[in-house]
Amino acid sequence: MEDSDPSLWFTDTINPNFVQLHRVRDSVYSGKTSFQSVQIICTSSFGRCLVLDDKIQSAEADEFIYHEALTHPAMVLHPQPEAVFVAGGGEGATLREILRYRSVQRVVMIDIDQEAVDLCRRFLPMLHQGAFEDGRVELLHLDARDYLARSNDKFDVIIIDLTEPVQGGPACLLYTREFYSLVRERLGPKGIAVVQSGSCTLGELHVFTAIARTLKSVFPAVLEYQAYVPSFGGPWGFTLASEEIDAFSLSPEELDARLSERLAGNLRFYDGVTHQGMFCLPRYLRQELDESKTVITDEQPLFLS
Amino acid sequence: MEDSDPSLWFTDTINPNFVQLHRVRDSVYSGKTSFQSVQIICTSSFGRCLVLDDKIQSAEADEFIYHEALTHPAMVLHPQPEAVFVAGGGEGATLREILRYRSVQRVVMIDIDQEAVDLCRRFLPMLHQGAFEDGRVELLHLDARDYLARSNDKFDVIIIDLTEPVQGGPACLLYTREFYSLVRERLGPKGIAVVQSGSCTLGELHVFTAIARTLKSVFPAVLEYQAYVPSFGGPWGFTLASEEIDAFSLSPEELDARLSERLAGNLRFYDGVTHQGMFCLPRYLRQELDESKTVITDEQPLFLS
Amino acid sequence: MEDSDPSLWFTDTINPNFVQLHRVRDSVYSGKTSFQSVQIICTSSFGRCLVLDDKIQSAEADEFIYHEALTHPAMVLHPQPEAVFVAGGGEGATLREILRYRSVQRVVMIDIDQEAVDLCRRFLPMLHQGAFEDGRVELLHLDARDYLARSNDKFDVIIIDLTEPVQGGPACLLYTREFYSLVRERLGPKGIAVVQSGSCTLGELHVFTAIARTLKSVFPAVLEYQAYVPSFGGPWGFTLASEEIDAFSLSPEELDARLSERLAGNLRFYDGVTHQGMFCLPRYLRQELDESKTVITDEQPLFLS
Amino acid sequence: MEDSDPSLWFTDTINPNFVQLHRVRDSVYSGKTSFQSVQIICTSSFGRCLVLDDKIQSAEADEFIYHEALTHPAMVLHPQPEAVFVAGGGEGATLREILRYRSVQRVVMIDIDQEAVDLCRRFLPMLHQGAFEDGRVELLHLDARDYLARSNDKFDVIIIDLTEPVQGGPACLLYTREFYSLVRERLGPKGIAVVQSGSCTLGELHVFTAIARTLKSVFPAVLEYQAYVPSFGGPWGFTLASEEIDAFSLSPEELDARLSERLAGNLRFYDGVTHQGMFCLPRYLRQELDESKTVITDEQPLFLS
Repeated sequence: MEDSDPSLWFTDTINPNFVQLHRVRDSVYSGKTSFQSVQIICTSSFGRCLVLDDKIQSAEADEFIYHEALTHPAMVLHPQPEAVFVAGGGEGATLREILRYRSVQRVVMIDIDQEAVDLCRRFLPMLHQGAFEDGRVELLHLDARDYLARSNDKFDVIIIDLTEPVQGGPACLLYTREFYSLVRERLGPKGIAVVQSGSCTLGELHVFTAIARTLKSVFPAVLEYQAYVPSFGGPWGFTLASEEIDAFSLSPEELDARLSERLAGNLRFYDGVTHQGMFCLPRYLRQELDESKTVITDEQPLFLS
Repeated sequence: MEDSDPSLWFTDTINPNFVQLHRVRDSVYSGKTSFQSVQIICTSSFGRCLVLDDKIQSAEADEFIYHEALTHPAMVLHPQPEAVFVAGGGEGATLREILRYRSVQRVVMIDIDQEAVDLCRRFLPMLHQGAFEDGRVELLHLDARDYLARSNDKFDVIIIDLTEPVQGGPACLLYTREFYSLVRERLGPKGIAVVQSGSCTLGELHVFTAIARTLKSVFPAVLEYQAYVPSFGGPWGFTLASEEIDAFSLSPEELDARLSERLAGNLRFYDGVTHQGMFCLPRYLRQELDESKTVITDEQPLFLS
Repeated sequence: MEDSDPSLWFTDTINPNFVQLHRVRDSVYSGKTSFQSVQIICTSSFGRCLVLDDKIQSAEADEFIYHEALTHPAMVLHPQPEAVFVAGGGEGATLREILRYRSVQRVVMIDIDQEAVDLCRRFLPMLHQGAFEDGRVELLHLDARDYLARSNDKFDVIIIDLTEPVQGGPACLLYTREFYSLVRERLGPKGIAVVQSGSCTLGELHVFTAIARTLKSVFPAVLEYQAYVPSFGGPWGFTLASEEIDAFSLSPEELDARLSERLAGNLRFYDGVTHQGMFCLPRYLRQELDESKTVITDEQPLFLS
Repeated sequence: MEDSDPSLWFTDTINPNFVQLHRVRDSVYSGKTSFQSVQIICTSSFGRCLVLDDKIQSAEADEFIYHEALTHPAMVLHPQPEAVFVAGGGEGATLREILRYRSVQRVVMIDIDQEAVDLCRRFLPMLHQGAFEDGRVELLHLDARDYLARSNDKFDVIIIDLTEPVQGGPACLLYTREFYSLVRERLGPKGIAVVQSGSCTLGELHVFTAIARTLKSVFPAVLEYQAYVPSFGGPWGFTLASEEIDAFSLSPEELDARLSERLAGNLRFYDGVTHQGMFCLPRYLRQELDESKTVITDEQPLFLS
């Protein structure tokens, strides 16, 4: 495949009343694993994209926003992140961001779908950038919940980088109070968990607010934040959970200083000012978070309609 | 590529106010040759499709209608077709239909775009079905007009199976009075030419009527007919041109008898009754043909849209 | 509303893998009656359109094809049509065509949906052209099957101009063997019924072939024919049913002569040659008709998927 | 028009490779004024929307975000806003936000397109909420630049709420250095101007960065900020310009206190924390702002592609 394809479009049904069309240059791969459908397409706007069950997960042009937003707040707020656990994150870009930290000695990454990970390794080198080869990484293809339930290890940072909960999808029982209790048990003393938490667009907030409420039913300290990811079609929500945490304990300047101590080079999206902006949510969003009552449990899991 | 791709669509802009969307299972190939863009896609409705410059040329599911409609009326109305010339027809399916006739001894096929033909040979075996390997075929990659201008050969049937004339496209000077005069010179005594003549949908008739009028400025006998090809989004027009010709000289039964003499097996679309139906155009279409004044010339070529 | 609206589109989902987009200049009306949703839109390609339950029923630009194809074969093949019955046909255009015949003395039209008919009378004058005001018309808003079951009247021509059978829609029990038996009883001695019979596009033939088969289970003589209606997105099927009928009993010239005896002026679509073309179906279509086994009954009605 | 219309879509072409489809319940109005095309549609996701030249300007569901983001930072940072000038803002919602301030004594609003304003007054009462009737408002239909050039009045806050600069559109010469110089002259001693500044999505930043750079060529103090507006398909940029200004001179708590002094009730989007978030732009965005060199002038105006 050599050139652009001007009349092929990928349709992303944000909701039944709102659809986004991305012009496609190339369809690189299309198939089904045991767990989900996988497509790798190249869109004109966003470059090569990983699409799982018809939703764009990572796009070459803007994945840096998502992966930096997911990884760095927890890594920077932790006093000294050495052992990190990742659930999901098959494209390897979360791994890539974690491995920037000199302090990191061990990363356990559990992604249940080995075929999907293999496809990412083969077709999306610009995303993982060789992260899977790093000697600090232990990559396992298991159920992340099973693994945590059986493990006695403690982690400084736990990153939940899962696809959204769709009925019958692989991630349903990884969004519940029971799972988050397990996460809390596996965190070290100053440990921080971060959960990718879905859309935080007005009118689409039910997943985001339910995840936050559920985490609050388990953790003493929970902090929500957002970042706008163009290829996701809106701002995206994230949630930090810990025993004790304050997003604004460091000034933007102190945060920049800590970043340059801990890792080499600059990030593209994240720094002290960006951090400040991410954690200052608009009033209507803070209100919806306050008002949410939904606690997700194994008995009453949440599905993205 | 293993499986269906439910959120990829091919858009076919029939006109600025009317667009057709075909769900795509696979994008098999996408590139540009020296002459045109080539895509090979697999749509859910029509199977594998050849797309040139963003227009579907042949679809696995219904190409039999187009290629039978293009080839057989001329081949059946000719008393004894032995030497056949094809301009265009790169996918090899017109060739396939011609080669069914036991009487055929030589087919010269000229398609200027060798890369496109090679892609069809590689990716569309269900279309050519090995026709290119038949010993009676001479395949050349030249300008068809140049070839006819320099040749002294005579042909019993000449089939003009070209893409529609788009500005800068390879086919512009193969739709003019001057080219049709050359075609007339190269026909044997009872020779018949047939020209694929574009859409014959109400409101989209300008190419069809202009081709017919232009042929009438060159040939004494011209007959228009149509067949509905679903993947083209409407009925398609064809034009026969000769020194003398009558579509209804044979009854449906006589035509069926002639077919079974001349070739083995049955066709899927074409037979005596189908022939009768194709040549009986609706009243409004006959009127538009009568009223058309446009003669296409080298100086004033016609462009689609 | 004064002017064109370049970014509004009507989507017509022909099937889950094939969608047509029509640019909309105006949305004239949108609502729900007790029986169905009704929209009246003005598309750039086809002018003002009646849309019932999301399907285009009649478009200003090409309804003449549909309504002439539906009405005239039966009216012309009947020796002397005086009493005509119409089931459905709410836009009044079938009525308009029937009323052209000088011999017609009485038309009973039954359309169950008075609100829809009133909307057509108000917003679609170019379709009915005042037909509802003609003194020969009796318009009733009842169930057509009930009416025929209770009536003792005989009709020369019965025209079934109903929307396609969708689950829960008003027309489900008007496509069954039981209903067609009732139609047969209400026809006069040389009476002819005609049924609009859905798409006859390759791959979409199940409604058309089932209606034909069902009519054959009731009537001794059944004849299928087609006409291409651009706004319907393909060729459309119709079926004639009678005690004895032959589509080709009149030559095109004789048919033209009969038309000019029976009505004033020319039609735009229909005449002797057009008639000939409509009844000569392509080979694959005749084969699918031959092979169909589905008889629609009250117990096993047919639904358009 | 009574009910939903499930198959009508508004297409918003964000760029040639990215299109958004909004399901439309109703097309309320569609026409052309002397200056632009005006549509008023009701989408399923966003309620009633004003669409000018095919771009959504204000949507019932989320216009509060845009209008609060545009109006309140300037109004709150000014020590005592009494006289306010608005260029554009035809739907009256910017006016509505300004009039909340008890200190405001006079608002001059200039929108060149009287027909468009009249349509908004008639069809979009939920947007203006009667603002046009307030005795403090002077509404004029002139060229805003002409008016400012001829006026000697000084304003505390000047709000530039114009459609984006499209070739031949009404707003082209209201985005240039020369216009901004005029704005600077008409500001009172502590006056603040705010300019709606287009998309600030990654890859779509050229208008936003050029407006900021142009304002910096005129004003000593310029501050960029953003808010995410779902119906606009991405985060939206705004720019404050003044002689001296500091977005963070007030803490979130001080800002909330000032708001409750100055106006009654709560806003939905804007408050102290939201303010903080809006002015903390992500790193890549600050870099693109720093690197931009484009100064828009009367001789070299900027057009949105």
